[in-house]
Amino acid sequence: MRISAEIVSIGTELLMGQIVDTNAQHLGQLLPELGIEHYHRQTVGDNLERATQALRLALGRSDVVFTIGGLGPTEDDLTRDAVARALGVELEFIPEVAEKLRKLFALRNLAWTDAQNRQAMRPVGATVIENPNGSAPGLLCPSGGKWVICLPGPRGEFVPMVNGPVREFLASLNSETVIHSRVLRICGMGESLVEERLRDIIHGSSPTAATYAKSAEVHLRLTAMGANVAEADLVLDPVELEIRRRLGWHVYGSGETSLEEACLTELEARGQTLGTAESITGGGLGAQITVVAGSGAAFLGALVTYWTPLKTQLLGVPKELLATHGQVSAECAQAMAIGAKSRLGVDVALSTTGNAGPTPDTDGKPVGLVYVGLATPDGAWVEEFKFRSERAETRLRTQRVALTMLYRWLRGQLS
Amino acid sequence: MRISAEIVSIGTELLMGQIVDTNAQHLGQLLPELGIEHYHRQTVGDNLERATQALRLALGRSDVVFTIGGLGPTEDDLTRDAVARALGVELEFIPEVAEKLRKLFALRNLAWTDAQNRQAMRPVGATVIENPNGSAPGLLCPSGGKWVICLPGPRGEFVPMVNGPVREFLASLNSETVIHSRVLRICGMGESLVEERLRDIIHGSSPTAATYAKSAEVHLRLTAMGANVAEADLVLDPVELEIRRRLGWHVYGSGETSLEEACLTELEARGQTLGTAESITGGGLGAQITVVAGSGAAFLGALVTYWTPLKTQLLGVPKELLATHGQVSAECAQAMAIGAKSRLGVDVALSTTGNAGPTPDTDGKPVGLVYVGLATPDGAWVEEFKFRSERAETRLRTQRVALTMLYRWLRGQLS
Repeated sequence: MRISAEIVSIGTELLMGQIVDTNAQHLGQLLPELGIEHYHRQTVGDNLERATQALRLALGRSDVVFTIGGLGPTEDDLTRDAVARALGVELEFIPEVAEKLRKLFALRNLAWTDAQNRQAMRPVGATVIENPNGSAPGLLCPSGGKWVICLPGPRGEFVPMVNGPVREFLASLNSETVIHSRVLRICGMGESLVEERLRDIIHGSSPTAATYAKSAEVHLRLTAMGANVAEADLVLDPVELEIRRRLGWHVYGSGETSLEEACLTELEARGQTLGTAESITGGGLGAQITVVAGSGAAFLGALVTYWTPLKTQLLGVPKELLATHGQVSAECAQAMAIGAKSRLGVDVALSTTGNAGPTPDTDGKPVGLVYVGLATPDGAWVEEFKFRSERAETRLRTQRVALTMLYRWLRGQLS
Repeated sequence: MRISAEIVSIGTELLMGQIVDTNAQHLGQLLPELGIEHYHRQTVGDNLERATQALRLALGRSDVVFTIGGLGPTEDDLTRDAVARALGVELEFIPEVAEKLRKLFALRNLAWTDAQNRQAMRPVGATVIENPNGSAPGLLCPSGGKWVICLPGPRGEFVPMVNGPVREFLASLNSETVIHSRVLRICGMGESLVEERLRDIIHGSSPTAATYAKSAEVHLRLTAMGANVAEADLVLDPVELEIRRRLGWHVYGSGETSLEEACLTELEARGQTLGTAESITGGGLGAQITVVAGSGAAFLGALVTYWTPLKTQLLGVPKELLATHGQVSAECAQAMAIGAKSRLGVDVALSTTGNAGPTPDTDGKPVGLVYVGLATPDGAWVEEFKFRSERAETRLRTQRVALTMLYRWLRGQLS
C-alpha cells in the first residue's frame, strides 16, 4: 500500500498571483521519486478558518499533509494555529527555540520584538525540524498514523529543509517499493535531436525516460521501480550506458552536477586556471561559476567591463578596434578573452559581450546579438548568437553558452 | 454581496511539478481587479473522479469556478466529462465546432483523427467561448445562478481568452466594485518591526495591509475597494503618506522598483558612478545591478578577485594587511572598496568578502562571516554580518545587504 501525500500552500500572495508556487513544484517533483502518491493540492489565503478546513479535508484523504508558508512571526502567519485546530490539540511554547531565535537576532544586530516568540510555538506532540537558513523552524506533527509537515515559505529555507531532513523522513515512511530516478545532463544538442537519437528508449516503459529542456541544455530523467535502490539501479545502469554511447561527450554529467562543476573538475585535474571578462553578463558568469563550492581551486577572478572605456583600460582592447567594430563584435569578444587571460594571469578565459536590450545599441547593434570568446593555450575562439529572448533570459543564456563553449574545448570538440 | 471565484487546475504535470501554474497566477491577478473574492484554489491530476469531486467542492462554496486545462483531444483530457458530472448534465456534440476544427486542420495540413471530435463536446446548456489561438474552445456552463468556466491550458490560448471574453463576462457579473492594490518596498528594517510601527494600519480594514518578508527587505501591500480605481486611490493615498512618514527613508520605492533600481536612479541624478570589488559574491553583485536596463548610466564595472593574490594585484590591497588580518576581514573589505574606487575610476564602490562555506577558511574564519565595504567621496565604511544560511543564500544576502548599505548612504543614513 503506497503512501499518499497532499500539499496545502498557505498565503494570500499565492492566490493573488504575486508569486508562483515554485515550492509546491519542488516538492511535487520529489514525491514520485520517493514512491509517494500525490493526487491533490490546495491553496488557501492567510485565513485561519479556511486553512483549518483545507487541512481537515487533506487529512481525510492523504497520509502525509504538507503545509507551505505561514510560519513567520507576524499575525497573518497562522499555519501553526490552523494545524493545531485541525489536529484538535493546543499550541505550546518551546523555550529552546525562542532562545535560539534571540541569539540569532543578536548575531544579526536585529531588534527583537515579542512577536518573534510566535515562531517558538508548536502544536502539542510536534517535533521541530531545524531551519539553519532562517528563523522559523519546520514542524513534524503526528496524527493517528498520519503526519502534518509544516515547511517555511522562503525558498532559501524551504529547499534545504525538503532536500535534507524531510526527504530523509519521507524515505523512512515508504520503504516497500522505491521509484528511483537519475538525471543525465546533456549540452550542445537540442531537445528534439536528443529525442530523435533516443526514440526507442523514450518510448520504452522500464525505465521510463523523459526529457526536459533547460536554458541551453537538456536533462533526461530515467526512472525505474524496484524493491530497493540497488534493484532499480540494475534497470537503469545498462540504459544509461547505452545513452552515453549514443550521445558521447554531449552527456556532461548526471544528478546534480552542473556544467560549471564539470568544467571546474576538469580544469582542476589539468591544473589549469580560469577567469572571465564580462560585459553583457555584468559578473553573472563569475557568479555562476562560484556557486560551486571549491571553485576557487580553478577560478581566479573576473574583469567586468560594463562601461566601454574599461574594456581598453582593464583588458587592453584597442580603442581602434572598438571604434571600427563596436563593443558588440566578434573582434571585441576575442580581444576581451585574450586580455583577461593575460591580465588575470589565467590559462583559460571566457568573455561575453552583447546587447541584452530592451533597445538597440547606439551603434545600431540589434537586441539579442551576443558574442562569446574563449582564449586558451591552444588559441582563441569566438561564437556569435542571436537570441530572441527577454533581457534577463538573454543574459542567462549567454552564461550557459559560454560554459558550453568551455566544456566543448575541454572535450576537444572546438575546432 | 460580492461574487466569489475559485480555480480548479487540472493536470498531472502540475502536481508532478513539470510545470508551474502561471495560468492560475494570471487569473489570480485579474480577480481582485474585478472586485471578485478569491479564497481557494485546487489542483488535481488527470483523473475523472478526483476532478469531479474538486468541482463539486468548489461549486459548494464559490459562485464562479474556473477549470484550467484538460480540454484537448486526448483521453486524459477529461475536464468536459468532469464538469458534466459535477453539474449533473449530459455531454452533447456541437456540429458547428467540429466543422470549424476540420477546417482548421485542413488549413494547417494536419491529419484529422476522430479523437478531435472530443473537443466539440459540451455539457448541455453550456455556451462556447471562441478560441482563435487553438483548437479547443472554452466553455461557459451555467448552474443555478453559478458558473463553471472552462479554459484551455496552453498559455498562448489561455491568456487571450482570459484577457478578452472572460474578463468581459466577469466584469458584467460584478460591476459594482474594484479592488486596487499597491506595494511599498522597505529595506533596513525587519518584518516584525515594520508591523510594530504600523500595527494600527495593519489591523485596519480599509485599506487592508499585509507584509511579506523578502531576502533582506519587506514588501507591504495596501489594498482598497472602490467603485473604480480613482476612488480606491482616495483610500490608499493618505495611508501611504502616513506609512512613509512613520518609516521614513526605509520606504525605498513602490510597485516593481527594485532596491538596485532605486540606487541607480539616485546615483544617475547625482551624476555619480558605481563599481564593485567582489570576492564572496563572485560577480553576483555586478550581475544583480545590471539586471536593471539602463544601469550602464551609473554602473561602470567590477573587479572580481576571488583568488587572494588578485586582491593585491587588481585592487592594491597590501600583502601585509592580508597576512595580518586575512582576506575575510573588515580591513580587507575596506581596502577592496577603496581600491575599486580608484582602479575603476568610480565615485562610489561596494566590496564583498566573506566565507560562504561549506567549510571554514584555511585561516579559521567561520562559515557565514561576511564583510561589506563602501567607499564614497565622504569616506569609507565597513559592516560585519554573521549569516547562518547555506552557501547560495549567504551569497545572495551579501548582495542585498551591500545594496542596502549603498542605499542608506545615498539617504544620508550611514554614519
